[in-house]
Amino acid sequence: MKGYAMLKIGEVGWIEKDRPKCGPTDAIIRPTALAPCTSDVHTVWEGALGDRHNMILGHEAVGVVDEVGNQVKDFKPGDKVIVPAITPDWDTEACQRGYPSQTGGACGGWKFSNFKDGVFADFFHVNLADNNLALIPEGMSQEAAVMIPDMLSTGFMGAENANIEIGSSVAVLGIGAVGLSGIAGAVLEGAGRIFAVGTRPISVEVAKKYGATDIISYKDGDTADQILEATDGEGVDAVIVSGGGPDILLDAFKMAKAGSTISNNNYFGKGQGDKDTIPIPRVDWAFGMGDKNLITGLCPGGRTRMERLADIVTYGRMDPELMATHTFKGFDKIGEALELMRDKPRDLIKPVVLLD
Amino acid sequence: MKGYAMLKIGEVGWIEKDRPKCGPTDAIIRPTALAPCTSDVHTVWEGALGDRHNMILGHEAVGVVDEVGNQVKDFKPGDKVIVPAITPDWDTEACQRGYPSQTGGACGGWKFSNFKDGVFADFFHVNLADNNLALIPEGMSQEAAVMIPDMLSTGFMGAENANIEIGSSVAVLGIGAVGLSGIAGAVLEGAGRIFAVGTRPISVEVAKKYGATDIISYKDGDTADQILEATDGEGVDAVIVSGGGPDILLDAFKMAKAGSTISNNNYFGKGQGDKDTIPIPRVDWAFGMGDKNLITGLCPGGRTRMERLADIVTYGRMDPELMATHTFKGFDKIGEALELMRDKPRDLIKPVVLLD
Amino acid sequence: MKGYAMLKIGEVGWIEKDRPKCGPTDAIIRPTALAPCTSDVHTVWEGALGDRHNMILGHEAVGVVDEVGNQVKDFKPGDKVIVPAITPDWDTEACQRGYPSQTGGACGGWKFSNFKDGVFADFFHVNLADNNLALIPEGMSQEAAVMIPDMLSTGFMGAENANIEIGSSVAVLGIGAVGLSGIAGAVLEGAGRIFAVGTRPISVEVAKKYGATDIISYKDGDTADQILEATDGEGVDAVIVSGGGPDILLDAFKMAKAGSTISNNNYFGKGQGDKDTIPIPRVDWAFGMGDKNLITGLCPGGRTRMERLADIVTYGRMDPELMATHTFKGFDKIGEALELMRDKPRDLIKPVVLLD
Amino acid sequence: MKGYAMLKIGEVGWIEKDRPKCGPTDAIIRPTALAPCTSDVHTVWEGALGDRHNMILGHEAVGVVDEVGNQVKDFKPGDKVIVPAITPDWDTEACQRGYPSQTGGACGGWKFSNFKDGVFADFFHVNLADNNLALIPEGMSQEAAVMIPDMLSTGFMGAENANIEIGSSVAVLGIGAVGLSGIAGAVLEGAGRIFAVGTRPISVEVAKKYGATDIISYKDGDTADQILEATDGEGVDAVIVSGGGPDILLDAFKMAKAGSTISNNNYFGKGQGDKDTIPIPRVDWAFGMGDKNLITGLCPGGRTRMERLADIVTYGRMDPELMATHTFKGFDKIGEALELMRDKPRDLIKPVVLLD
Repeated sequence: MKGYAMLKIGEVGWIEKDRPKCGPTDAIIRPTALAPCTSDVHTVWEGALGDRHNMILGHEAVGVVDEVGNQVKDFKPGDKVIVPAITPDWDTEACQRGYPSQTGGACGGWKFSNFKDGVFADFFHVNLADNNLALIPEGMSQEAAVMIPDMLSTGFMGAENANIEIGSSVAVLGIGAVGLSGIAGAVLEGAGRIFAVGTRPISVEVAKKYGATDIISYKDGDTADQILEATDGEGVDAVIVSGGGPDILLDAFKMAKAGSTISNNNYFGKGQGDKDTIPIPRVDWAFGMGDKNLITGLCPGGRTRMERLADIVTYGRMDPELMATHTFKGFDKIGEALELMRDKPRDLIKPVVLLD
Repeated sequence: MKGYAMLKIGEVGWIEKDRPKCGPTDAIIRPTALAPCTSDVHTVWEGALGDRHNMILGHEAVGVVDEVGNQVKDFKPGDKVIVPAITPDWDTEACQRGYPSQTGGACGGWKFSNFKDGVFADFFHVNLADNNLALIPEGMSQEAAVMIPDMLSTGFMGAENANIEIGSSVAVLGIGAVGLSGIAGAVLEGAGRIFAVGTRPISVEVAKKYGATDIISYKDGDTADQILEATDGEGVDAVIVSGGGPDILLDAFKMAKAGSTISNNNYFGKGQGDKDTIPIPRVDWAFGMGDKNLITGLCPGGRTRMERLADIVTYGRMDPELMATHTFKGFDKIGEALELMRDKPRDLIKPVVLLD
Repeated sequence: MKGYAMLKIGEVGWIEKDRPKCGPTDAIIRPTALAPCTSDVHTVWEGALGDRHNMILGHEAVGVVDEVGNQVKDFKPGDKVIVPAITPDWDTEACQRGYPSQTGGACGGWKFSNFKDGVFADFFHVNLADNNLALIPEGMSQEAAVMIPDMLSTGFMGAENANIEIGSSVAVLGIGAVGLSGIAGAVLEGAGRIFAVGTRPISVEVAKKYGATDIISYKDGDTADQILEATDGEGVDAVIVSGGGPDILLDAFKMAKAGSTISNNNYFGKGQGDKDTIPIPRVDWAFGMGDKNLITGLCPGGRTRMERLADIVTYGRMDPELMATHTFKGFDKIGEALELMRDKPRDLIKPVVLLD
Repeated sequence: MKGYAMLKIGEVGWIEKDRPKCGPTDAIIRPTALAPCTSDVHTVWEGALGDRHNMILGHEAVGVVDEVGNQVKDFKPGDKVIVPAITPDWDTEACQRGYPSQTGGACGGWKFSNFKDGVFADFFHVNLADNNLALIPEGMSQEAAVMIPDMLSTGFMGAENANIEIGSSVAVLGIGAVGLSGIAGAVLEGAGRIFAVGTRPISVEVAKKYGATDIISYKDGDTADQILEATDGEGVDAVIVSGGGPDILLDAFKMAKAGSTISNNNYFGKGQGDKDTIPIPRVDWAFGMGDKNLITGLCPGGRTRMERLADIVTYGRMDPELMATHTFKGFDKIGEALELMRDKPRDLIKPVVLLD
């Protein structure tokens, strides 16, 4: 079979590989819609995970079950499924501590295009099919469904971790697809006023549709200062960090109230200086005593998560399709879509490749 | 001044009283909009709190500050304010345990029309004005604002206590104004599918606008059975109990999953039998081992709560005005409005009396 | 092989069965220490679970691994292991909601002597060995180890669910082995003053050693009244219900503060009247508005739980051996031990049967 | 009256001031025992809070009520009281968000020796006496009682914020009085294995008495490496940061599991470089996706907190007196005690000055 792969740092292309083998609890999936992710860009062009050779890329897919192992009970060939970006080893001891995304070590639930071949292939392999697949509900579009595995799950997590109470004020830093999902997630967690920090017109438009009440642009000055001014110097109850460079936490802590949460769902592709660190501001952290908490996480995966997110879409709580700004037809377009993600033209939120 | 009072159990009418005195941290409010509550009905016609004589009724009001004590810093005469139904003694030790509604004993934060005169008067008294008043935002209607002190605060609490995760399924039992607010609150907590149990057409209509996805009527059979059937026997992740008689928890526990929350914001005006108890079903509670938790609370009060709920309205997260089905003009109509609340015609959700 | 079984309601005895078969992820265990449980008594003599025929009893065991399936990685024959009373299906979808004890329906994690043969046998079967077994640490006695699978796990859960803050006051109703473990658990959750309600001298003695500060006996009057009096009418921050009949929640709610948690780890073997219900007091629940929450659960199971509880013993945080008041040698004594549990002589906390 | 003051950065000495005035809800206290704190050292000799002139130092005291305002109900002259280091404005709106230590801006609950005169004086002023004082229980020594206002409250907070479950493994970085209290607090939160990182012999001895199971010294190599090795590379469930320089979070994140909490109760007196930042390690934070959360706080204050901590001591849950290694008699010794705190001889944990 063929796949679209990272050949080495900075280089991508088509390769041939054997079709993956299906263990007793596994499934083999034939993708019907794919989406490239900024993470793929980090992985290939920044070498953020270190070197990788001939690794098939991609972790956002929906598809059709092609084969299942003999212990799989709930899925069969022909089922149309959502595949989470994160597929934890639910039957290992590590899940019992409550951190399924971290099974098998840090970020160990992230298998696709990290330490096994990804989904940009004719076929790909899913571990523990009964626990890591979810049926696509009747009537859901491919474009909507393929936003669920990572964009909605990661974006919503940013809001879920932010300790938002009904009526809390929230700032979302970065309005790519994850940040936009964070805005929608903040509304689903009860946020009142929501500041969206970003400038791309198409993102701004969707941010408003998802519930942003104030748009903040760096072009108008320091973004933290703008938010402080708009809140009479108080700052916000929660900050969701969904973008930015190594210094972004300096802004985040500055605009956060004493007594607040900074929730990160940003993937820090690089750090500051030789020591490769991410700085927190001492004074704006109130010398470590300001009750400003920094919460993180990796995209939640698994079947129940996918089913619940599908329900969010089915019952009209938010419409993920608004983020699918560019649609390609045919697997051969995956390279083009990935490069679009890298180049980020002004009218892009997220490209989708339809295979059927 | 005059007030509309409970004269004794079963009897209401106008009385004359002295204008309340304003202590150093207090405020005296002149109401501009009032709403009667089912609680007033319980208090007067069921004697649910025991006997009361010549107690002015009412705890849902917005108004104008008429006088403030000399230690009040943030409010002045002429300010238009929302007054929470629950006005905790924030400067007492009891708040420090985290239960402001229970200051000074069980339900001690509930002062109006419980153990002091209520708001159905020319003027009424508010303790700790700086902590228990909130400005009405520019442009908010009186009808919307007067839903905040109790309906939104109590209704949302039902959802907040229900441990709803993004995509959870929820059932709301009872679709009066509190139950309807609970539906809106469940959406604000991330609910996916929401079953609303009730039959009144006007309530059903608003329930759908607020986010209910399935309407369940007792006329179609046992409501728990209907919900179990609709969920393939699984039941729901959360049940919000916002109405029903002493036996309502039997239904609630039956439709709740093993591993779920039953969140009560119902005021149990009477119990079962001589022993005055509320029964839980032994088997549907899985013999006490089913991880089905029963959470309760009294309406949260105070300034920050009111401000945050006002933000919910200001930023368009829900529209409380839909519940104000009947509007009266003039304080002299308060008795008529209260009786409407008692009689509950089919087209009523909530009556509002405008005074200005 | 032979096992000690419930033949039918009210009747126990020895039976012969085939040795259980070991699936690919399973283990077969040869017990080395067993403990009968009050649950076994409920099951046999009260028929609390309904009828069962020829079901081998028992769910508290430690033993030696005799056989493992070919997919088991972390255990091998000869390993000395603690076996949790509750062995969840960790590889099923139900765990992902966060309720492992409820996999496969209400109390579905409770398999032994509920819907499969228990541990009072020459050999018994454990599902998902890698996730449901834990090594016995070096130097831990059999008597201590066999308290972990249920007594410590259930008892501690009572305290964990009680929302105890450092310095909270707690009442524990019932001082059998579960209640005593709840006292020790309350200390491990930070309790200050702890009222233990019970009368058996041996239990009282251990209650004090585990951290009870006040012993309350029904012989001195209504237990709730005594606790209210001792706390100047305030009641306690948390009540752990570890015993009592169908009416026990009446006491629990009465002694609980407005703003408190009633944590149940009692197995309600029977309810009140025909309707088989458990009553809550309406007034002492403050009409459903008193912020008094009723939390329940089933004993947590699984490997990580067992490992952590073993650490509690290893690092000297509490000594479970104090509860093993009666020790028998030889598997043939299991019936005698079970009847002791049923008869509960005054000097009994928990009998243990040593097999090696 | 006289007080021991920071004259300017780097300089301390005796000054004369007017006795503070007592407002209607306030109290004036005459101290009977005082303790200098490392914070005083930071404030004076590092200028950590910026410049201060003639500000009386000290925030750890117990004493006798000398005067109360006319609205104070629960305290009267002659009462022996514990005074929390942090005295929040409980009657302000800011508490309602749930962050009492942050009332009136970042760290605003910290008034003594921060922005009002401290407790090293003949008399000092306490705001909101009913909410910020607690009676010293009968029989408690002055040395024990004076550890409660800051050492126990701050130290325990470190453990309370660390999400410790029963049997969790914990590392405590720094074993001064706060770190030692953190060890005791970790036991009260249910910790199993506890690594204490530090070298001072007297502290090591008390650490063991409080429940540390492993002592780690930097003299034996990188402390994080040692802890990783001792845990088979897994790291710990929780790290409590109670000491160290600006780089200490690098160690903390390194030794923390993927899926863990880093709880800070360290006062960062200085940061790294010109930008005055505190660095987090990018890779050991798993690029921001490792579910490693950084939680902070300022010492909790107020009456209920003090009462609960007093109960912890009264009921024998831990013995704070072990930390009072040096006792001085007479107010005139306060300067000597403060310098001892600055110089930290090897046999010091905490000096106490007794005034009566």
